[in-house]
Amino acid sequence: MVVKKGHRQRQAEATKAQIAAAARTLFATQGYVGTTIAAIADAADIPAPTIYSAFGGKAAILRAIAWGVVGTLDVDRAHDEALAHPDPRSALRLVANLQRRQHEQMYDVIDIYQEAARTDPDIAEDLRTIAGNRERAFRRQVEAVAAHLAPGIDVDAGVAIYLTLVLPEVYRTLVIERGWTADRYEQWLAGALITQLLRPPA
Amino acid sequence: MVVKKGHRQRQAEATKAQIAAAARTLFATQGYVGTTIAAIADAADIPAPTIYSAFGGKAAILRAIAWGVVGTLDVDRAHDEALAHPDPRSALRLVANLQRRQHEQMYDVIDIYQEAARTDPDIAEDLRTIAGNRERAFRRQVEAVAAHLAPGIDVDAGVAIYLTLVLPEVYRTLVIERGWTADRYEQWLAGALITQLLRPPA
Repeated sequence: MVVKKGHRQRQAEATKAQIAAAARTLFATQGYVGTTIAAIADAADIPAPTIYSAFGGKAAILRAIAWGVVGTLDVDRAHDEALAHPDPRSALRLVANLQRRQHEQMYDVIDIYQEAARTDPDIAEDLRTIAGNRERAFRRQVEAVAAHLAPGIDVDAGVAIYLTLVLPEVYRTLVIERGWTADRYEQWLAGALITQLLRPPA
Repeated sequence: MVVKKGHRQRQAEATKAQIAAAARTLFATQGYVGTTIAAIADAADIPAPTIYSAFGGKAAILRAIAWGVVGTLDVDRAHDEALAHPDPRSALRLVANLQRRQHEQMYDVIDIYQEAARTDPDIAEDLRTIAGNRERAFRRQVEAVAAHLAPGIDVDAGVAIYLTLVLPEVYRTLVIERGWTADRYEQWLAGALITQLLRPPA
């Protein structure tokens, strides 16, 4: 059953989206700590009291930004596709594609989260939850290719290496600082996952 | 010619070392921004005015900590040894050993620097200088093995990959978060540098 949204609800969502977009730009350029609700109000052209009543505070705005992006990525379906792939190399290539899309769509948001976590305990808690979920997903991927792991690499070691290769700082170094295309990053990541985790093909 | 240090100079150096040691612990546990000169004075049991006159401020203390550690690592000699090695695999193993010693001795200092750079422009400038020096040293290493680079990897790509593999965040993930020994990290790093940069042996 599709529930039709009323005019008022659509308007409230549009306002929230406008606030979130303005905040995302400010967080990325001025820093999370350096951005005030007043500055977001100015940039979004929406009164500060409306922002407080729509979100409550900066942390809630940041969460809304993150959830908005995550929703478009369809992370669970992408992980399931990789898990279902019978060929371990192709599975890791699908994983690399998902990581590329995640970084491409929300590298700035992850960076803001990490900065915000230093001063906001709720955001730090969010980040721990996200890290836990990511690790569980990565572990399932490594377990799915366990029969093909390189000598000396058990599932724990595979997960540890996986976690380092997909670090946002690695994406930042290659794409943001060195100007690699996202495509080149994806190819590199797929190759690195394959050569570091899997037994060479016979 | 060895210049003998006078008693007063030795005493001044001992005081500075005592301040630096107390500050390093506080920076690492309370954060750079969260540590006051008063707290350092308390922890070092040295009056705050003495700290101000010995260093001038927190940034100078942080620099002294970093230079103190860097001095013990003999980085230039280690890089020269790697550059001089005729076998490219052995050269990259020497590089991995240097990186392991750097992270082992000063991972906490690098982490403090990165935090401090977010709020202190002088520290941010320091960090840019350090990053520039590191990259120049890495580029010389990659140029030294240029004849052995894998297909598709030119010197620029080699430097970019090198920079990602030696990131402090990679060390943090493997050693600090996953409990790998420094030895295992060094073996992994050597293997990753070799397989990602060099042509497989014929």
